[in-house]
Amino acid sequence: MSEQAVRPVRVAILMGSDSDFPVMQEAASTLEQFGVGYEVEVLSAHRSPARLHDYVERAPGRGIEVFIVGAGGAAHLGGVVAALTTRPVVAVPLASTPLGGLDALLATVQMPAGVPVATVAIGGARNAAILAVQMLALADAALAERLRAYKRELADSVAQRSARLKQQLAEKAAGRSS
Amino acid sequence: MSEQAVRPVRVAILMGSDSDFPVMQEAASTLEQFGVGYEVEVLSAHRSPARLHDYVERAPGRGIEVFIVGAGGAAHLGGVVAALTTRPVVAVPLASTPLGGLDALLATVQMPAGVPVATVAIGGARNAAILAVQMLALADAALAERLRAYKRELADSVAQRSARLKQQLAEKAAGRSS
Amino acid sequence: MSEQAVRPVRVAILMGSDSDFPVMQEAASTLEQFGVGYEVEVLSAHRSPARLHDYVERAPGRGIEVFIVGAGGAAHLGGVVAALTTRPVVAVPLASTPLGGLDALLATVQMPAGVPVATVAIGGARNAAILAVQMLALADAALAERLRAYKRELADSVAQRSARLKQQLAEKAAGRSS
Amino acid sequence: MSEQAVRPVRVAILMGSDSDFPVMQEAASTLEQFGVGYEVEVLSAHRSPARLHDYVERAPGRGIEVFIVGAGGAAHLGGVVAALTTRPVVAVPLASTPLGGLDALLATVQMPAGVPVATVAIGGARNAAILAVQMLALADAALAERLRAYKRELADSVAQRSARLKQQLAEKAAGRSS
Amino acid sequence: MSEQAVRPVRVAILMGSDSDFPVMQEAASTLEQFGVGYEVEVLSAHRSPARLHDYVERAPGRGIEVFIVGAGGAAHLGGVVAALTTRPVVAVPLASTPLGGLDALLATVQMPAGVPVATVAIGGARNAAILAVQMLALADAALAERLRAYKRELADSVAQRSARLKQQLAEKAAGRSS
Amino acid sequence: MSEQAVRPVRVAILMGSDSDFPVMQEAASTLEQFGVGYEVEVLSAHRSPARLHDYVERAPGRGIEVFIVGAGGAAHLGGVVAALTTRPVVAVPLASTPLGGLDALLATVQMPAGVPVATVAIGGARNAAILAVQMLALADAALAERLRAYKRELADSVAQRSARLKQQLAEKAAGRSS
Amino acid sequence: MSEQAVRPVRVAILMGSDSDFPVMQEAASTLEQFGVGYEVEVLSAHRSPARLHDYVERAPGRGIEVFIVGAGGAAHLGGVVAALTTRPVVAVPLASTPLGGLDALLATVQMPAGVPVATVAIGGARNAAILAVQMLALADAALAERLRAYKRELADSVAQRSARLKQQLAEKAAGRSS
Amino acid sequence: MSEQAVRPVRVAILMGSDSDFPVMQEAASTLEQFGVGYEVEVLSAHRSPARLHDYVERAPGRGIEVFIVGAGGAAHLGGVVAALTTRPVVAVPLASTPLGGLDALLATVQMPAGVPVATVAIGGARNAAILAVQMLALADAALAERLRAYKRELADSVAQRSARLKQQLAEKAAGRSS
Repeated sequence: MSEQAVRPVRVAILMGSDSDFPVMQEAASTLEQFGVGYEVEVLSAHRSPARLHDYVERAPGRGIEVFIVGAGGAAHLGGVVAALTTRPVVAVPLASTPLGGLDALLATVQMPAGVPVATVAIGGARNAAILAVQMLALADAALAERLRAYKRELADSVAQRSARLKQQLAEKAAGRSS
Repeated sequence: MSEQAVRPVRVAILMGSDSDFPVMQEAASTLEQFGVGYEVEVLSAHRSPARLHDYVERAPGRGIEVFIVGAGGAAHLGGVVAALTTRPVVAVPLASTPLGGLDALLATVQMPAGVPVATVAIGGARNAAILAVQMLALADAALAERLRAYKRELADSVAQRSARLKQQLAEKAAGRSS
Repeated sequence: MSEQAVRPVRVAILMGSDSDFPVMQEAASTLEQFGVGYEVEVLSAHRSPARLHDYVERAPGRGIEVFIVGAGGAAHLGGVVAALTTRPVVAVPLASTPLGGLDALLATVQMPAGVPVATVAIGGARNAAILAVQMLALADAALAERLRAYKRELADSVAQRSARLKQQLAEKAAGRSS
Repeated sequence: MSEQAVRPVRVAILMGSDSDFPVMQEAASTLEQFGVGYEVEVLSAHRSPARLHDYVERAPGRGIEVFIVGAGGAAHLGGVVAALTTRPVVAVPLASTPLGGLDALLATVQMPAGVPVATVAIGGARNAAILAVQMLALADAALAERLRAYKRELADSVAQRSARLKQQLAEKAAGRSS
Repeated sequence: MSEQAVRPVRVAILMGSDSDFPVMQEAASTLEQFGVGYEVEVLSAHRSPARLHDYVERAPGRGIEVFIVGAGGAAHLGGVVAALTTRPVVAVPLASTPLGGLDALLATVQMPAGVPVATVAIGGARNAAILAVQMLALADAALAERLRAYKRELADSVAQRSARLKQQLAEKAAGRSS
Repeated sequence: MSEQAVRPVRVAILMGSDSDFPVMQEAASTLEQFGVGYEVEVLSAHRSPARLHDYVERAPGRGIEVFIVGAGGAAHLGGVVAALTTRPVVAVPLASTPLGGLDALLATVQMPAGVPVATVAIGGARNAAILAVQMLALADAALAERLRAYKRELADSVAQRSARLKQQLAEKAAGRSS
Repeated sequence: MSEQAVRPVRVAILMGSDSDFPVMQEAASTLEQFGVGYEVEVLSAHRSPARLHDYVERAPGRGIEVFIVGAGGAAHLGGVVAALTTRPVVAVPLASTPLGGLDALLATVQMPAGVPVATVAIGGARNAAILAVQMLALADAALAERLRAYKRELADSVAQRSARLKQQLAEKAAGRSS
Repeated sequence: MSEQAVRPVRVAILMGSDSDFPVMQEAASTLEQFGVGYEVEVLSAHRSPARLHDYVERAPGRGIEVFIVGAGGAAHLGGVVAALTTRPVVAVPLASTPLGGLDALLATVQMPAGVPVATVAIGGARNAAILAVQMLALADAALAERLRAYKRELADSVAQRSARLKQQLAEKAAGRSS
């Protein structure tokens, strides 16, 4: 997809560790699917606070409209980014500790009044990207149409899987009765 | 604020029960503070599914760009609205059962891939409104400026409270030492 | 079991994704064991709401008396079906996220007053089917008798396992002492 | 409602302690609303096991078709009744300990394969009764019609509350602007 | 250990399913280690209530002084046994569901006033046996002495493991420095 | 009950703080009811470890056969006493923090192999005492008979409460119909 | 305690909101009790990030050796301070949401490798101060002696409360028997 | 690192079982990295209380300034050590039961007022060591400088990983477009 390079970057995908990328890459591939330019950065609220600060402050000037962040454990990345920007921040709690992501979920979602973080499911990187696209689509009719098409495809896909499962069961039943 | 009536309605604030309004009204007052038109509706995913369906399908045609929903317990309202629209849905889990809102939080945030719900803190109605404003501000420079001003006021307010607290402690210490 | 095809379909087994079938097939096999006709459908509250709506509205006319649904995460399927019918809805929370099914359990069971969902154990597809049979047996003496026989078999099976375990332990002890 | 006395008793409402009655009476009043005869009994799985055993064994002979049970803490009442009968057992976990009913919910819902308990929300006594009515309505067209009417009333009630809330907000706004 | 056969049986080890034996056998081997006679029985509170009832009622007459029970999920076995006897009941919650044993723990320990169940750790079958031995040792000086010896061995074992670990670390350090 | 003074002390009731006494006194009154001598001591595993050590080491010599302990939060008292004695230790987790006693429950029950603590319900001081009596009754026929009488009274009390509740409901119904 | 003013400030007590002061003042009073100079500041990780950054960077130069922070909900304050300093950070999770402080605890304690936060109990402000004093006492013999005296007073206080409780119980018993 | 032998031992790393060493060795290697002498001991609060008592009482005389402890389940080791010393105690809750370390976390962190335990993340042995170094560095300028260097390395490492990930993504994109 060579056009990716020339598309303007509108979404930043940030994560606290490169070990988070296997989950967060679903956000990247979803944005590609919708034709939305993005960039990926490893930036830790705790280990590289100065670089994070610089990055977030400069991001809007470089065209970033929405931040997607992924973090596990005491997942502060979403909140720290939200503290530094007025752009929407979408956060993906990651299940990187023995508590199954409950720690990351609560550390991400329970933000104090004044500084929201839009939280999606534990490991829900695809939904983070769709949410970012929904935001951008508010002022982008082409994106909005792609979202409607995606919704129809979701429904079609469920119907096809249902049909396939019923076909398999019918064949099994036919096999048993013959 | 008499202008509220003539402002175009851009945000819908939905709740499963009128008993949720004492919490959700903070979303309303925050939208007023930012000068964003909204409407309020009581609509239950479980008790009035047909009216909910109609409402959500017609809402975009009437200018609704973002949905804010509040629900407690098996809080399905956010997910059911998100199933019916491609506009962003922001959900406030409510602590209306003995489980302190953990049920509403998990029932809201753990959405399957394809249908995101932007979840804020338990009872976080103010943040739901700010998040909606952040989304609208992506294509509305005046709103964006109001968000930046709000962020400055937040910081000032914390500084003032800090100063006031330190003043009180100093006076108490002075009283003790005199 | 070729008679399955000609038995009237009285129970619908619905699931949000075909990946749920490995668990939900135990509901299917249990209904077969009791000679109760059923059908299987993949139908998502979030991804195919329109088809779900149509399905549930038409189901009673096609003879469906009880709905069995399986869903994980923010498991709304049970509640959404219950919103659309007055027939009993039995729901199986599925452990499909890192939270071990606690999310699905709470999202399923904590329904608001007026719209019940009969919830069984996490992954308890067999019990969902037995519960459906118990409901149908209220007006079906033959089914009721099959349930009583099943209960006796359960007790016998436990007694046999106990005897077998004690036999093994006695043999081991005899082996040690000889 | 003097006819209550002469209606045949079809549902048993059991609870582990008379202190559970303030919650469980909502099951009783809901059954009255639907015109379904019931009886109330305090019967503990732990403190009066022999009387419980006798009661459950004789209940079907006396016309009991569905059991509704309420219990808190290590809530075994539902499971113990279900062990003794093939009739459906609907259980209401009660929030009677500092754990907010999570203990009662898990002790009620996590039944082993073979012996289901239809679990409703913590404190959900009204829904337990509606679920019992849904079961009885499978073979009782008059009850089925009353359930459909109830569903319409639920939807109407939500619509009325929505209208009333919007009216109040409009009046307040008018007051502010005048 | 051929003497096992002739030792009087003083402890009953009960479990809801033979699949629980791999955990519960540690109770058996611990009782053997202390020379306390026991018997093993698979008995389900839910699947074989009548046989359980008979077993518990007859057990004291056959010399059973303490009951050890293991159960998972909605673990009612401890409570149901305790309802039928005045002998001490020690229960082991088992981690047999996706909730990691939290369900079994709460279903076991949160008993109502009047009917205690002595609960040990999730999967803590060895400790259940030691607790039973402690109870029997109150009136059995030889057992009491064996418990004191066991306590000394526990301490010695920890000291030996500490010494071994320090030895290994010293050798590794020596290897690095040479 | 003036005889309390002359009864031999067989049970120690220990608690981490005198603020725990309102809950723990139910253990004391239950032991009095059964005619078992006891003593009460405030002893903290964390704040008075030396005195706790001395107390536990001397207790058996002074006739203590069973320890009952109550503690909240990081409830170590049960485990620390059990580390120092081979007599049975019964522990009552107390709900003294915002976590509703879940912390105390887990800190009490999850003991490592070798050192059991017999845990009862959160706040279950009465059951701790009954469990202690059950242990002592293994070698005390008079106590054993008192336990059987207590069990009968429990059952009678439930039956009486059931009768009273049904009487009240009948009177109310009569009032409505007249 | 007029000397407070002239004591060098060695500890900073930070909190996210002045509404946290009623809990956090116990840290202040404990430091006064040990004669350790401190200052109090309201500084939010989310609402005043720039001022927080400045404060933490300058604090060591002004003599701050240890940071004590209190925060609730998505409690990031401890982690954000720890990201900016190499001095020890002690954090008090606060129970300021319906989740009883579990959110604040997990958001505080589950820090990633490299950036520790020393976490104390929910609401444990006194212990945060004692921990800070323990750290300072490593190089301050007078403080170390005060800690040893405090430990003796803790033990004495428990002994006195025990004696007082036993006295009250003895008087009550005497009253009953006379 | 042959110098390890001659460095004075300032930190004790204690664990309840040698099976905890695979996690706790990260504390050891981190202290080596900072050049801080340490010793390792297996010491159980429950299985070897007397040896633990002796060890902790003698440790300060042998130069131990900070205790690092690791324990799982009903993790009492931190609290019991803290009860016996006025030196700082840093504790690592270990995930050694099916509850994922939640039991160890709560049993460690929820200490009563007066006896703090500095708790780090579940399994966070590296952070326990860094926290110990931060405490020692308060009076050791060389250590303080090493901590600052370590913080810079942390930030550099994140930046390098970010660069490497972006490089990989760019190469993949180039591969796709060529």
